[in-house]
Amino acid sequence: MNDSLPDTRGGLLPVGFKASGVACGIKADPSTLDVALFVADAPVAAAGVFTLNRVCGAPVKVSRDRVPSEGVRAVVINSGNANACTGARGIEDAETMAAWVARRLDCSPESVLVCSTGVIGHYLPMDEIAGGIETAVEVLGDSAESFDAAARAMMTTDTVVKQSVHEVSLSGGVCRVSGAAKGAAMIGPNMATMLAVVMTDASLTAECADMVLRRAVDASFNSISVEGHTSTSDTVLLLAGGSGKAADGEGDLEAISEAVTAVCQELARAIVADAEGAEHLVQIDVRGLRTTEEAERIARTVADDALVKTAITGNDPNWGRIVSCCGRTGVELVESDITLEINGTLIYREGVVVEYDEQAVSRAMRDDEQVEIELSFPFGESSTRFWTCDLTTEYVRLNSEYTT
Amino acid sequence: MNDSLPDTRGGLLPVGFKASGVACGIKADPSTLDVALFVADAPVAAAGVFTLNRVCGAPVKVSRDRVPSEGVRAVVINSGNANACTGARGIEDAETMAAWVARRLDCSPESVLVCSTGVIGHYLPMDEIAGGIETAVEVLGDSAESFDAAARAMMTTDTVVKQSVHEVSLSGGVCRVSGAAKGAAMIGPNMATMLAVVMTDASLTAECADMVLRRAVDASFNSISVEGHTSTSDTVLLLAGGSGKAADGEGDLEAISEAVTAVCQELARAIVADAEGAEHLVQIDVRGLRTTEEAERIARTVADDALVKTAITGNDPNWGRIVSCCGRTGVELVESDITLEINGTLIYREGVVVEYDEQAVSRAMRDDEQVEIELSFPFGESSTRFWTCDLTTEYVRLNSEYTT
Repeated sequence: MNDSLPDTRGGLLPVGFKASGVACGIKADPSTLDVALFVADAPVAAAGVFTLNRVCGAPVKVSRDRVPSEGVRAVVINSGNANACTGARGIEDAETMAAWVARRLDCSPESVLVCSTGVIGHYLPMDEIAGGIETAVEVLGDSAESFDAAARAMMTTDTVVKQSVHEVSLSGGVCRVSGAAKGAAMIGPNMATMLAVVMTDASLTAECADMVLRRAVDASFNSISVEGHTSTSDTVLLLAGGSGKAADGEGDLEAISEAVTAVCQELARAIVADAEGAEHLVQIDVRGLRTTEEAERIARTVADDALVKTAITGNDPNWGRIVSCCGRTGVELVESDITLEINGTLIYREGVVVEYDEQAVSRAMRDDEQVEIELSFPFGESSTRFWTCDLTTEYVRLNSEYTT
Repeated sequence: MNDSLPDTRGGLLPVGFKASGVACGIKADPSTLDVALFVADAPVAAAGVFTLNRVCGAPVKVSRDRVPSEGVRAVVINSGNANACTGARGIEDAETMAAWVARRLDCSPESVLVCSTGVIGHYLPMDEIAGGIETAVEVLGDSAESFDAAARAMMTTDTVVKQSVHEVSLSGGVCRVSGAAKGAAMIGPNMATMLAVVMTDASLTAECADMVLRRAVDASFNSISVEGHTSTSDTVLLLAGGSGKAADGEGDLEAISEAVTAVCQELARAIVADAEGAEHLVQIDVRGLRTTEEAERIARTVADDALVKTAITGNDPNWGRIVSCCGRTGVELVESDITLEINGTLIYREGVVVEYDEQAVSRAMRDDEQVEIELSFPFGESSTRFWTCDLTTEYVRLNSEYTT
């Protein structure tokens, strides 16, 4: 990937939050961090957005029932094992993880949320996790190092730590929004999953937290794709509160909403940039549709198309594949409705091929920070922005050499 | 691919049909066959099924308007150039190709169908094609060699000729159904396309030909996928008649329908088996759904999933990816509704992982003629069978190294 991508590493937790990351032996290498803990000093508002896959992990089922809430204290996460397709025993294990944290924090089990990410179809090694949770509570801290360790302990095939921190001025004072995410873009070994925890010291009601998170996720994690496979365990959590700085009135709510969206977008782009085997980050803008749903359908079809993705791998401005994608979405259109630019160069205008310097566009695809595909239509005002990556031989190698 | 796949090469044309294949210089290598011609001695019934992509090639637009018909004499096909995204000039060129053939056969231009396959967005080299059509008419013949040349002249990235011949006993006598197809499974350089021409000397009305073809295509070409990208030029044509042996009554119609379906299925499987870079042919059976649409949605989601396809490349019985696919289709289901077998071995029964010999299943995936995925549900009687291939580094290499 290009080195000029945003550096999403480092940064501090919001006031009133602590974190830790420890190794308890779930993964093959016993020194690799595999248990992350995020703790609020006092109960905070919490919202969650979860995978829509009907086959979903036990922690999704457990945590989904516990948000939105105004009494959440902690999120415990293990990596290396997704605790998915594990039936009643899986549910019991997820509840037990939360209960162990609750006992150490002296709060109710329902005030602890739980996530797992990794291989599907194996029961959790609960003895190791018991020890991991003990240690994780002991080493909780509010330093950048603690936050970093927690973000690392969430990782599976990720090659970089993904964190994002924004500050925002509310009427009650400056608040911080800090997030950590994992994911090689919804793909990975045996359904690696996309997880993110976003914390802010701004005080929100559970209802507001839920609204702010849904808005942020729509414009970030729901606008990325590697191969369109919604995993069994995708989870994004927002914890809000602790500073007493309430987000009051519409202006504050707008400001905190923007900050949460900015953090989620940085984390989402970092996930795509770190997608398995990816060599290009691709931004797709679709404009001029009748509805946002139409714009999203076109963006997603282009983003998930194996022929478009492999063309980008080869720095090939293969506009025929992109135009053909538009035609197969079911959106009512003909060739002459389509205008296409790649990295700012007009390639196809209203159904007619434009004379352009193919070599120059190919060089721009190779050298620019990201490949930018812009599709314009004459139907209306609806638009969307979407991010994806290319499809490389390395992706195939990584995903065909996993379990056997 | 395995050598035990059905041999779909060779065989004879039906009575009353001639064919030829010539090289006119559309492709880089001027000795490669690039114009195919199929001619009926007298007008025959014809039906066609065309791509649903709204961005479609000029020949699709021209031929679509000419079927069903009872007065078709010929199909002319060029490979190496799809004549797609070429606007009004493209339409004119397609009409001209048909008109040139019609003049030589002394029939109306509307009685000639036209197909093009190859690169998108380039105008046809009409001078070369004019010469090609002249020669193709001159060398028309009814031998196996003529049929073979026509099938070869349709090919783009195909590595094998795809033909299928069945004989069928009707009340009026024995008839033949002969088909030729091209396609590296809907994928290929700049949207290679899937084309097939099926001919029979059984006499059918245009209405019956249309019904027989739609039924055959649903169970064959509409049940294969490489990466789900419906191309701009997919076309399947059926020409029926010439022998005076009418398909009379329901029994005959059923017999001819079965023979046409068998020819289409053999050609469809041959396309998947020859898909770019493919190492495994994959058959997916989905049973026990409420509707065929539900069964097809599950089969297609599994077939087009990059994670499933790369697991198969690695001979990896990675059931978690298959089960997760079922969950993301939107079909109403939970884990305990899903039962999965791979190459006859039970892996996952009603939501519970079964003890199985992973190495033995992996060996079967490597050694058997095809990988067989069977998914069973408890909801109803609807089922489907679908074919796909795996996703290899060779697919990525071929598709990222095309135009630049």
